Amino acid sequence: MTKPVHNFNAGPAVLPRLVLEQAQAEMLDFAGSGMSVMEISHRSSAFDKIQNEAEANLRSLLNLPEEYRILFLQGGATTQFAMVPMNLAPAGHSADYTVTGAWAKGAFKEASRLGKARTAASSEGTGFDRIPSPGDLDLDPQAAYLHFTSNETIHGIEWATEPAAPAGVPLVCDMSSNMLSRPVDPTKYGLIYAGAQKNLGPSGVTLVIVRQDLLERTPQGLPLMLDYRLQAENRSLYNTPPVFSIYIVGLTLRWLLENGGLAGIDRRDQVKANHLYRNIDDSGGFYRGHAQPTSRSRMNVTFFLPNEELETAFLKEASTNGFVGLKGHRSLGGIRASLYNALPLESVEALSQFMAEFLRTHG
Amino acid sequence: MTKPVHNFNAGPAVLPRLVLEQAQAEMLDFAGSGMSVMEISHRSSAFDKIQNEAEANLRSLLNLPEEYRILFLQGGATTQFAMVPMNLAPAGHSADYTVTGAWAKGAFKEASRLGKARTAASSEGTGFDRIPSPGDLDLDPQAAYLHFTSNETIHGIEWATEPAAPAGVPLVCDMSSNMLSRPVDPTKYGLIYAGAQKNLGPSGVTLVIVRQDLLERTPQGLPLMLDYRLQAENRSLYNTPPVFSIYIVGLTLRWLLENGGLAGIDRRDQVKANHLYRNIDDSGGFYRGHAQPTSRSRMNVTFFLPNEELETAFLKEASTNGFVGLKGHRSLGGIRASLYNALPLESVEALSQFMAEFLRTHG
Repeated sequence: MTKPVHNFNAGPAVLPRLVLEQAQAEMLDFAGSGMSVMEISHRSSAFDKIQNEAEANLRSLLNLPEEYRILFLQGGATTQFAMVPMNLAPAGHSADYTVTGAWAKGAFKEASRLGKARTAASSEGTGFDRIPSPGDLDLDPQAAYLHFTSNETIHGIEWATEPAAPAGVPLVCDMSSNMLSRPVDPTKYGLIYAGAQKNLGPSGVTLVIVRQDLLERTPQGLPLMLDYRLQAENRSLYNTPPVFSIYIVGLTLRWLLENGGLAGIDRRDQVKANHLYRNIDDSGGFYRGHAQPTSRSRMNVTFFLPNEELETAFLKEASTNGFVGLKGHRSLGGIRASLYNALPLESVEALSQFMAEFLRTHG
Repeated sequence: MTKPVHNFNAGPAVLPRLVLEQAQAEMLDFAGSGMSVMEISHRSSAFDKIQNEAEANLRSLLNLPEEYRILFLQGGATTQFAMVPMNLAPAGHSADYTVTGAWAKGAFKEASRLGKARTAASSEGTGFDRIPSPGDLDLDPQAAYLHFTSNETIHGIEWATEPAAPAGVPLVCDMSSNMLSRPVDPTKYGLIYAGAQKNLGPSGVTLVIVRQDLLERTPQGLPLMLDYRLQAENRSLYNTPPVFSIYIVGLTLRWLLENGGLAGIDRRDQVKANHLYRNIDDSGGFYRGHAQPTSRSRMNVTFFLPNEELETAFLKEASTNGFVGLKGHRSLGGIRASLYNALPLESVEALSQFMAEFLRTHG
């Protein structure tokens, strides 16, 4: 047996141990079926039960009203970058985008390629180190929708609360990297999407929550698989969905419910993030955070050491000590610790100790 | 423990027992990493190794030359129904389709919605009970490509060998349901695609094999995730791929190689199919096959009993005896036994015995 590691991967990322243990135990015989979940039909009552329970638990966690539809799609958030404008802003209607990092920019660029998109705010000028203040937003009251990325994994910044869209403009959010990490009021949103591989499950399934009335915007002639209305009408079963990935998402949703729901995970995630940010703030400038303090992400803590040599030494020693995934994204450099829901507090405490020790010996 | 079942599901379908056992054994600690495959980064050397080995084994199984690229995409064959015409037949160029069943018709309809498609042959008039003869094909020598579906799961018919496309017209094949079940010469093809959930692995990943020169056809302005060229340039890593599904496909490819490759599986699949068809042919008309004998599928055996009451009784008794997935597709009715690569011969022998016994007691 290998010794356990501390998994700070930015995504795909750590999953709840209990979820993996259950998947392992049921691998050859799911629910007395004599088959693996990977071997059951997506039209079977066994899968119907998996999907129903996942949807019910998601509704319960989010307090999601009936008029919102839940879709399990494929292709990741990057496919949503295209589906959102193709479905919600057809016929040259312009959409507003807040550009707060690599992911928001990717969504904006794809919408600009496929239609008309407008920058409502950008923090690119300061290296994506902050979330715009309400006063910085230049909003189009006629926009097809207002898009924002609730957390930026690469730069480590996060919206403390969602922006206020003008009356009648639906709010659309890429929530891939902080989905279900705290309570949100879903009725403020028109559409939420999230690749599963940070807080929800494995890569290969994308969750979409869409207010029913927005489905009426879908124009004729889209590729069928990119048509929200068709996917909703067929309850994500127009073709074969990613059965096993949805099953793991379902187990993760159950785990969240059994561990205090979103209020519970919010408390635990905040404790974890505070821990690391305190390490940074108390280091006398040795560790230098990238994000402005009020824009700090609870999911991805990004920081630098005094120079690249020290960063290389830090990563090397960290790796020797069982810490995985701490190298910053190549576009920003430095260090990144991703603290998704399933990361145990013990891993954060261990990293915190390691950082203190590294400061003591190299500071 | 539940008693083992005989899994005749049409897809998602039975997987090799050894593959599931290995996935189970490694679920909490993949290759000494201390992490599940679902928790490793798609940019890690561990995943790189998974992808490299899967590609190398696929090349070896198919004897696939260097000028073919291998892609692991999402969205199933239905997404390929759109990607093929969007990439290979841009700007109003017409493509030829052979219409041999529900799946070929789906591909043809999507191509017609998104561009220009022409029927080169159809067996709809006889209820999709046969594959067209070479003489039935009305081929456009200027077509962007010629598309065929090598096996139709719903009607149970299969091309014995691929159609001959006019010189310079690339052959495109939906091979979802008989991929890697026998030797094929890949150099006869321009593009092959296959949803994994029949012969390759779990649902949630789609294999695409494309000849490099065809990537030059991709026009500007496609949604990024539907752009073959971009996917090839990024080796399917433009965004996060379905890591776990690719891992299972990799284990399945290794299992195929270790069990005689395509020649070996071809022999075993043929033995399995012969077994059941003999049962049908020797039943004095009690079991009546849907497919014309020369078009019979080795993957999906479709047949009827003298009336619906007997079919209902057959399915009920079969279910009691541990046979899963034998109900015919709702559009055709009757019985369907899917005999994919991973289905053990013992399951076919058990079904064969059951059919003989049912005939004896109800015939």
